[in-house]
Amino acid sequence: MKEKRKIGRGVCVVGAGMSRFGMFPDKDSKDLFIEAYNEMISSVDKGVNPDDIDALYLGNFSNDYFVHQAHWAPIIADAIGHTPKPATRTECACASSALAFKEGVFAIASGFYDVVLVGGMEEMSKCSTEEVTAGLASAAFPSELVAGLTFPGIFGVIASAYFSQYGCTKEDLFNITIKSHSNAVLNHKAQIPFTIRDIMNQKIERAMKKGTPVPHWKDEKEFLRDPKANPMVAYPMSLYDCCPISDGASCMLLVSEQMARQFTDNPLHVVGIGQGSGAGLQGSGPLTSLEATKQAASEAYKMSGFKPADIQFCEVHDCFSIAELIDMEDMGFFKPGEGYKAVDEGLTRRDGSMPINTSGGLKCKGHPVGATGIAQIYEVWEQLRGEAGERQIPNNDLRIGAVQNLGGTGGTSSVTILERR
Amino acid sequence: MKEKRKIGRGVCVVGAGMSRFGMFPDKDSKDLFIEAYNEMISSVDKGVNPDDIDALYLGNFSNDYFVHQAHWAPIIADAIGHTPKPATRTECACASSALAFKEGVFAIASGFYDVVLVGGMEEMSKCSTEEVTAGLASAAFPSELVAGLTFPGIFGVIASAYFSQYGCTKEDLFNITIKSHSNAVLNHKAQIPFTIRDIMNQKIERAMKKGTPVPHWKDEKEFLRDPKANPMVAYPMSLYDCCPISDGASCMLLVSEQMARQFTDNPLHVVGIGQGSGAGLQGSGPLTSLEATKQAASEAYKMSGFKPADIQFCEVHDCFSIAELIDMEDMGFFKPGEGYKAVDEGLTRRDGSMPINTSGGLKCKGHPVGATGIAQIYEVWEQLRGEAGERQIPNNDLRIGAVQNLGGTGGTSSVTILERR
Repeated sequence: MKEKRKIGRGVCVVGAGMSRFGMFPDKDSKDLFIEAYNEMISSVDKGVNPDDIDALYLGNFSNDYFVHQAHWAPIIADAIGHTPKPATRTECACASSALAFKEGVFAIASGFYDVVLVGGMEEMSKCSTEEVTAGLASAAFPSELVAGLTFPGIFGVIASAYFSQYGCTKEDLFNITIKSHSNAVLNHKAQIPFTIRDIMNQKIERAMKKGTPVPHWKDEKEFLRDPKANPMVAYPMSLYDCCPISDGASCMLLVSEQMARQFTDNPLHVVGIGQGSGAGLQGSGPLTSLEATKQAASEAYKMSGFKPADIQFCEVHDCFSIAELIDMEDMGFFKPGEGYKAVDEGLTRRDGSMPINTSGGLKCKGHPVGATGIAQIYEVWEQLRGEAGERQIPNNDLRIGAVQNLGGTGGTSSVTILERR
Repeated sequence: MKEKRKIGRGVCVVGAGMSRFGMFPDKDSKDLFIEAYNEMISSVDKGVNPDDIDALYLGNFSNDYFVHQAHWAPIIADAIGHTPKPATRTECACASSALAFKEGVFAIASGFYDVVLVGGMEEMSKCSTEEVTAGLASAAFPSELVAGLTFPGIFGVIASAYFSQYGCTKEDLFNITIKSHSNAVLNHKAQIPFTIRDIMNQKIERAMKKGTPVPHWKDEKEFLRDPKANPMVAYPMSLYDCCPISDGASCMLLVSEQMARQFTDNPLHVVGIGQGSGAGLQGSGPLTSLEATKQAASEAYKMSGFKPADIQFCEVHDCFSIAELIDMEDMGFFKPGEGYKAVDEGLTRRDGSMPINTSGGLKCKGHPVGATGIAQIYEVWEQLRGEAGERQIPNNDLRIGAVQNLGGTGGTSSVTILERR
C-alpha cells in the first residue's frame, strides 16, 4: 500500500438531509428520498441550484428483493429532476451508501465532476419479518448461510466469542443499549426515540389500562434482564440488542474544496476515506475483530494523517450491541477486549471522552440499510456544525468526527473522517 | 456542464480477460470470474503481482434475484485472494460493469489508488426463462412494468416507432442479425458462434437425421422470414432479433498512465468516459432515441476531444437488433433514421467504414448482463492491440474505439472511448 493515500483535490460536504426513519406503510423509496433531498437543498447555507448537480451516487442494498424493483439510480434521478445526468447505484450490503459517498468523493477528486449528490435509501417494512430476515441474510457470506445462520445468530456467535475471550457479559451490553436509547430520545428523526425508562413506563401504563398484572422493574437493567420484556433472539443477543427493521433515506451534497465557500461558510472537509473487504466468520482472523474495518480505518487514518486519539467522536455500525464494541476496538479507540470497560465507565456517552453513536445508532435511530452510511455521516454533519440540538456533544472545540459503516459480517467496511476547519 | 470534462491524471488499461459466454450449469459466478481473472493476469505483457491491486469494482445486475445471494463484491474478492482490500459493487442494470470501469477510472484519476481491477459477472441460466424475464423486467422503469411490458415488448414498441417514423422494415433488421452472426462465428468465446447459414444447415441436417420434412430456404433472409424458424417474440421482434440468456464474467486491469509502461508497451488510454440517465419510454424525448445515450456520448466526446467521425469502430448495446440502430444514431455515427440504411449498405460490417459489434454483439456473443459492459470494452482491447485474430478489423491504423453500454430502456447509458498511442 502507498505510504499515504492522497486525492488530487479536496472535497467538502456543503449540504445534508435525512428522512425520518421508521416503518412507513404509506411512503415508498421515492417519497423518502425526496424528503431527505428537500432538506438537503434547504440546508445549503448560500443555496444550490439543482441544475448544477453533475451526478448522483445512490446506495441501496436490495430493493430488488424488498420491493421487486431494481435499477433504482435512474428512478431516483427522475424523481428529483436530475435526468439525463449520470446516476449510479453502489451496493455492499449495509455499507452501500458509505460507498456512494466514497465514489462521490472520487468523482470530484478526479476532476471530472464538481458537484455531486450522494445518498441512499431502503424500503424494508413492506415485507414480513421473515422475508426481511431472509433478504438480509443474502448479504452474509455463503459459508455463513450454509451453516444455517442469519444475522442475529452471526452476531450471537461473535458475542459469545467476545464474552469468552474477554470476560464481558450481557450486563455490559445493557450499558450500550441504555446509552443508545438515551441519545435517541433527543433525535426527532429516530425510529425509537425513547429511553429504556420511557419504554418501561409505557409497558406499565399499558398494563394498567388493560387491567393485566402491572410489571415492576427496579431499574433499566432489571428490565433488560427480564426475558418477557427483552426476549432472547439468538443467544446471547436479546431483542434490545438488535436494531429494528426500517424505511428511510439520506443524502449529502459534495463539492470540490475550491468551490465550497460558494455554498457555505461552514463546509466540512472530507479528510479521510477508507474501505476494506473480508470473508465474514470464514475469514482467518479472530471472531472478535473484523479485518475489513481495520483495513478501512488504516486507509482513512493514512489519508487524514490522524490517529485514533485525534478522532473526537464517532458513529459506528451497531446493527447489534456487540458490533458497537467490535467496531470501536477495530477503529483503535480502545484496545481489544477493553471496549466494554470503556462503556461501563461512561466514556462513550455524549458527555464522555469518546462519544459513540450520539444519534442513537442503528439500534435506536433505525437501520434502513442502504440509507445508513450517509445517515451516520449526517450525525457528524450536525455535530460538527453545532446543529445537533439537545444531542450536541458538550465540547466547544468539536472539529473531527468519524464514521464506520459495516456491510454483512465485515464483508465490507468503510471509514470516513470529516473535519471542520 | 463544464466546457470540457477532465480527469486529474490519465488512466490506462493494461490487462483484460473474459470467460466464455454461454449457459453453464456446472459453473457458478466465482468460477466464471476466476476464468476471466486468470486470463487477465496472463494478458499483462510484463506481468502483474496480484498483491499490487489496490481495489476491485464489480458490476452485477441482480445475482440477488438470479441466485439469491447479494453482496458479491467481497465474495469475488475472497475468491481471488484480494481481501482485505476494498471491493465495491456497482449496479445500473445491463450497464453495471461499464460503471465499474468508470468508477475504477475515477479511483485512479483521483490519485487515491494506482492499480484497480474492474469486472462484472452474471449467473442467469439457473433460473427458468420465465424467472429470467421477470428478473430482467425489474430493471425497466416502473411505468413500463405497469403497462405490462417486459423487455422484448419495450424494444418492440421502439422498433414500431422507428419503422413508422423512418420507413425501416423487419427486412432491414435482418441485415443486422446476419452481420452479428458473421462476426460471432469468428469469436470462440461467443455463446452462438454460428452464421445464420450454419444454423440453417444445422436445422436441415437435424431434419434429415430425424427423417422429418427437410426445410428449404433459398437464403438467410428467407430463413429469417419463416415464422417456424424465427418465431415472433413481441412484434416486431422475432427470436433472431433478441440476445440469449447467458452466464459469464469479464475483467480489466486499470493503472495510472504514469505506471502503464511498467506493465506493457502497448497500453490503451482511457480518453473518454460519459454517462447519462433517463426515464425509459416515459421520458420526454421521441421513442426512437435515448437521451441517456446522447448525454453519455456528449460527456465522453467532450473529455476526449473527439467527434463521432473520429471513432473508428464501436461496440454498441444490441440487446435487440433495433437497439443497435438507436445506439449508433445516438452515438452520432449516423443521422436519425439513417442507421438502417448504413447497415443495408454494409458500412457496419467488419470491412465497412464503421464496423459495429465485431465481437458478435450481445445478440451472438451473449449477454450475462453484469459482465457485458467490460466484455464490450474487451473487444476494443483485442481490436486495438491487433489481437482479434480472424475478427481483426482490416485497418492498419486502428487507434480509436468506443463502447456504448445501455441499462434498461435507457435508464442508464455509458460511453467509453479508448485510444492506442
